[in-house]
Amino acid sequence: MNYSLIPTAQTIVQHCQANDISNIVISPGSRNAPLTIGFTENPFFTCFSIVDERCAAFFALGMAQQLQKPVAVICTSGSALLNYYPAVAEAYYSNIPLVVISADRPIYKVGIGDGQTINQKNVFENQIGYSANLRQDVSHATDTIRHYKPEWIKDENIDKIQNEVQALNDAELNTAFTIAFTSQSPVHINAPFEEPLYNTTTETKVKAKIGLIFNKETNQTSLQSEKDIWNTSKRKIVLVGVNKPNSVDEKVLLSLANDPSVLVLTETTSNLNQPSFFNSIDSIIAPIEMNSDKDAFFENLRPEVLVTFGGLIVSKKIKAFLRTFSPEHHWHIGGVKANDTFFCLDKHIKVPVNRFFQEMYSDAKIVKSDYFNYWGQVKKEYVFKRSSYLNKIPFSDFSVFSQLMQSIPNNYLLQLANSSTIRYTQLFDMNPTLRVYCNRGTSGIDGSTSTAIGASVVSETPTLFITGDLSFFYDSNALWNNSIKNNFRIIVINNKGGGIFRILPGKENTDVFETYFETRHNLNAEHLCKMFGFEYRKADSTEVLEEALSDFYRISSRPRLLEITTPALINDKILIDYFRFIS
Amino acid sequence: MNYSLIPTAQTIVQHCQANDISNIVISPGSRNAPLTIGFTENPFFTCFSIVDERCAAFFALGMAQQLQKPVAVICTSGSALLNYYPAVAEAYYSNIPLVVISADRPIYKVGIGDGQTINQKNVFENQIGYSANLRQDVSHATDTIRHYKPEWIKDENIDKIQNEVQALNDAELNTAFTIAFTSQSPVHINAPFEEPLYNTTTETKVKAKIGLIFNKETNQTSLQSEKDIWNTSKRKIVLVGVNKPNSVDEKVLLSLANDPSVLVLTETTSNLNQPSFFNSIDSIIAPIEMNSDKDAFFENLRPEVLVTFGGLIVSKKIKAFLRTFSPEHHWHIGGVKANDTFFCLDKHIKVPVNRFFQEMYSDAKIVKSDYFNYWGQVKKEYVFKRSSYLNKIPFSDFSVFSQLMQSIPNNYLLQLANSSTIRYTQLFDMNPTLRVYCNRGTSGIDGSTSTAIGASVVSETPTLFITGDLSFFYDSNALWNNSIKNNFRIIVINNKGGGIFRILPGKENTDVFETYFETRHNLNAEHLCKMFGFEYRKADSTEVLEEALSDFYRISSRPRLLEITTPALINDKILIDYFRFIS
Repeated sequence: MNYSLIPTAQTIVQHCQANDISNIVISPGSRNAPLTIGFTENPFFTCFSIVDERCAAFFALGMAQQLQKPVAVICTSGSALLNYYPAVAEAYYSNIPLVVISADRPIYKVGIGDGQTINQKNVFENQIGYSANLRQDVSHATDTIRHYKPEWIKDENIDKIQNEVQALNDAELNTAFTIAFTSQSPVHINAPFEEPLYNTTTETKVKAKIGLIFNKETNQTSLQSEKDIWNTSKRKIVLVGVNKPNSVDEKVLLSLANDPSVLVLTETTSNLNQPSFFNSIDSIIAPIEMNSDKDAFFENLRPEVLVTFGGLIVSKKIKAFLRTFSPEHHWHIGGVKANDTFFCLDKHIKVPVNRFFQEMYSDAKIVKSDYFNYWGQVKKEYVFKRSSYLNKIPFSDFSVFSQLMQSIPNNYLLQLANSSTIRYTQLFDMNPTLRVYCNRGTSGIDGSTSTAIGASVVSETPTLFITGDLSFFYDSNALWNNSIKNNFRIIVINNKGGGIFRILPGKENTDVFETYFETRHNLNAEHLCKMFGFEYRKADSTEVLEEALSDFYRISSRPRLLEITTPALINDKILIDYFRFIS
Repeated sequence: MNYSLIPTAQTIVQHCQANDISNIVISPGSRNAPLTIGFTENPFFTCFSIVDERCAAFFALGMAQQLQKPVAVICTSGSALLNYYPAVAEAYYSNIPLVVISADRPIYKVGIGDGQTINQKNVFENQIGYSANLRQDVSHATDTIRHYKPEWIKDENIDKIQNEVQALNDAELNTAFTIAFTSQSPVHINAPFEEPLYNTTTETKVKAKIGLIFNKETNQTSLQSEKDIWNTSKRKIVLVGVNKPNSVDEKVLLSLANDPSVLVLTETTSNLNQPSFFNSIDSIIAPIEMNSDKDAFFENLRPEVLVTFGGLIVSKKIKAFLRTFSPEHHWHIGGVKANDTFFCLDKHIKVPVNRFFQEMYSDAKIVKSDYFNYWGQVKKEYVFKRSSYLNKIPFSDFSVFSQLMQSIPNNYLLQLANSSTIRYTQLFDMNPTLRVYCNRGTSGIDGSTSTAIGASVVSETPTLFITGDLSFFYDSNALWNNSIKNNFRIIVINNKGGGIFRILPGKENTDVFETYFETRHNLNAEHLCKMFGFEYRKADSTEVLEEALSDFYRISSRPRLLEITTPALINDKILIDYFRFIS
């Protein structure tokens, strides 16, 4: 086997292998050649080549999201690294262990006007779990180093100094990987390399000292005081954010479903599908907002206890409601961090979600309450009204999402883009066999397609990605990827601009609005499909869409994209009217 | 006229107007609505709408590069801002005053799990001239602020607190703009806005206090000691990096051209075109590198005095030579910063370039030397040999660049992508009427097309952009832009991957090489041309290229792209053989 001749490159590769980080996404470059050689020559690793670093990092993030373990991205020096930042931020706020490894110029060539050179150290400081700044080897390119930095090599005792470098780098790498695993955070490893960069050896001298990853400790506090409150509160809301499929025990879900004092509010990204849960939060709250007696209804909905778990919440309406009608208690269960999203967080209870609810229900005692019955009735009514509404509206974003949600085959991995896509999806029932994901850490439109492709590559079941037009064209380089599977499916809902801006309050229908908010365009996805080898279909009516969907998910020899064109000028009205209709 | 109701938005707009920053590039979003309204409603400003923030920032950078004054980019909160970073870094290392203005969530909604929210303060810390973190108004959304942050509004004296906010924000903005103008640096202005975001007023209450921009002081030191050295040194090299067209007086150029003790080494981006200057540095140095007696030749070339001016240097060979065969003196003239690129910088002489050389030549005294005569002869020989070489080689990157350089009409603005494009261009004579630019601050492949389009929008003459395939596909979203002029021309030299990696030492012709270094692909630009309304032509031989070029630059009703396919497997050999042939 060939290894890079550079010790730090060997060290990094050994640490990744020891930590079972086997998926490596590489962008082309010369400075990172020692790493490219090290990873691609070693059969332990599965490597992917992606040119655009912005896409590369989101692609890696999609893999890490599914694998629930670190995936590494490797790039050359200079601005290449900065293109990782959108995905690094998404990873940071979504608790995904993306491992960024950047090659750097030797430290004495930074800040002196060399090419492709920036200040890479701690460059992601504002949103990163850890920045490991590795030292430069002195046993490689020793004469060059002596030319520029004679003071580094004082006593000709190269081995001694190199051993110190090795020990420091091992320590930095152990810290970085420990944090990646225990905090589920992105980490950045910056490694300076001096030329020659391409030399290899068939025997490695480096024996990296791999540290033990510390297990996450769980605070085993008594939950008696919470249980006392739980068992005496008549109005409790359990609100679930981004949450992995199959992470909550069926028994816990049934206890919650059968508790008349509990409303479980879920989102599309919660991956929880009990029939009695409230899976369309906005369909509950929007009608109240329109009611002349809204304060009384909101008081009626206000919980005494709010329990949250999982990641970030999509619904703006639930945030606004809970910030004004605050519960007496807000406990966040599990996870590495608790957000005070509603400005009333009492406690971050660091026990697993299942254990928390098992304790709450350990006495089989049920609080008498009509909380669920009342709001359950409200839900029944809007579900009924939604179905009448769907029968009377024309072809539009709203009708399309209803049609799509019913079309998706069982067990698909469903990836959703941000903005309109995730918000519309939340209004409909989700097939409970699907696993649903969306980049809600920063809620950006910048990397959803790349993330979906990354996720699909490591998924055993086929993947459907639903996206709006702006998000799709933004990340069109995602399709520049040789690993896309033939069972990958994209649905683009093209309403010719940022349709979501039309439903925001205060917009006026002016040229300024169309140009700078909606950013109207006439693009379609057909050319990109031809360019990147996707089968292309389109639909612009309910009937054509039904026909297109009838065999869209069947086995094919190429990945497929279906573009649905909806009428930009009526979509907003139909959505707003929906909330009026059900209220 | 309509103004945003939010005071800080009004303040920012007033500062930009007072500082004559009239070009504003806006990306869509809701949080930045107060700024979008403020800039688009005011006829003083010319606004551009670009969805992909990475492209938006490079587009603005291209405009600022040509206008030599600040251009602003405006985005919403969250990861949108991070997509600006590649262009911010390029601006930082190229001394271009890009003004980044980001809308932010109110400070109490940062870090609590709100959507599209990251830690935006000082996010570009590692490469930015200044980060202005503005305060939040208390006279807008007062009740909301009181709900979350009652301690901000203690005594109900809103006006007093608002006046303090106004004064602090004025001070921050004055600092930011002073630095943008005096250091020619990018700056970042972060402005938190609370909802409602879309409300407007027809009368502005804000009267921003605009500071005076301090003029850059020039150190008026005596140059007598330099003059003494200049007039007694027999071997002087003047090396010019990235340099604006028409910035050096004709008289100075003639003095340098007629001085037998001076070699003027220029690059394509130097925009200097005296016939006796050495405009192909690598054609001088590469043959010496191959010579068995190379040390003697290099000693012969080693200058006593090295004078540099302008920005960063492209040629790796001149860097390697001067780092090993160091001059006794290295002076960098003018500019805001001097890089110690060759590890032997004595002085940063902060006087204008013209004044420096006027002083050096004020006595009309010429040092006797055969330095120029010797190397001028070497130049004549390689120019002659280059022309025989061109007659015998097949169609390739090398022959194509020779053909292209001769085709460009007078007075064009020529924009070059990085990597192969800039390096090949350096090997040929440049039409002296062209103005030539390339993003050499970070030398990235990430935004060259967007930069070229931005530059073309404010250029009075037509623009040609030459690029390689990887750089072109990387920044394909650049074409998603409604401002592209019909006289804009793109030439893509498509060698199916990163051909430059083939000429690097140490590569092997393996699958690993093709996949992870060269990143071989089969894309072409035709689909993107159809998608974005470009006329498309292609060429794959000298004859077809000649035919295609014959009317390529003529007036047209759409912008045009010419794609030239060259043979990936022989390009590297032809380039290396060229250096052998002339040596």
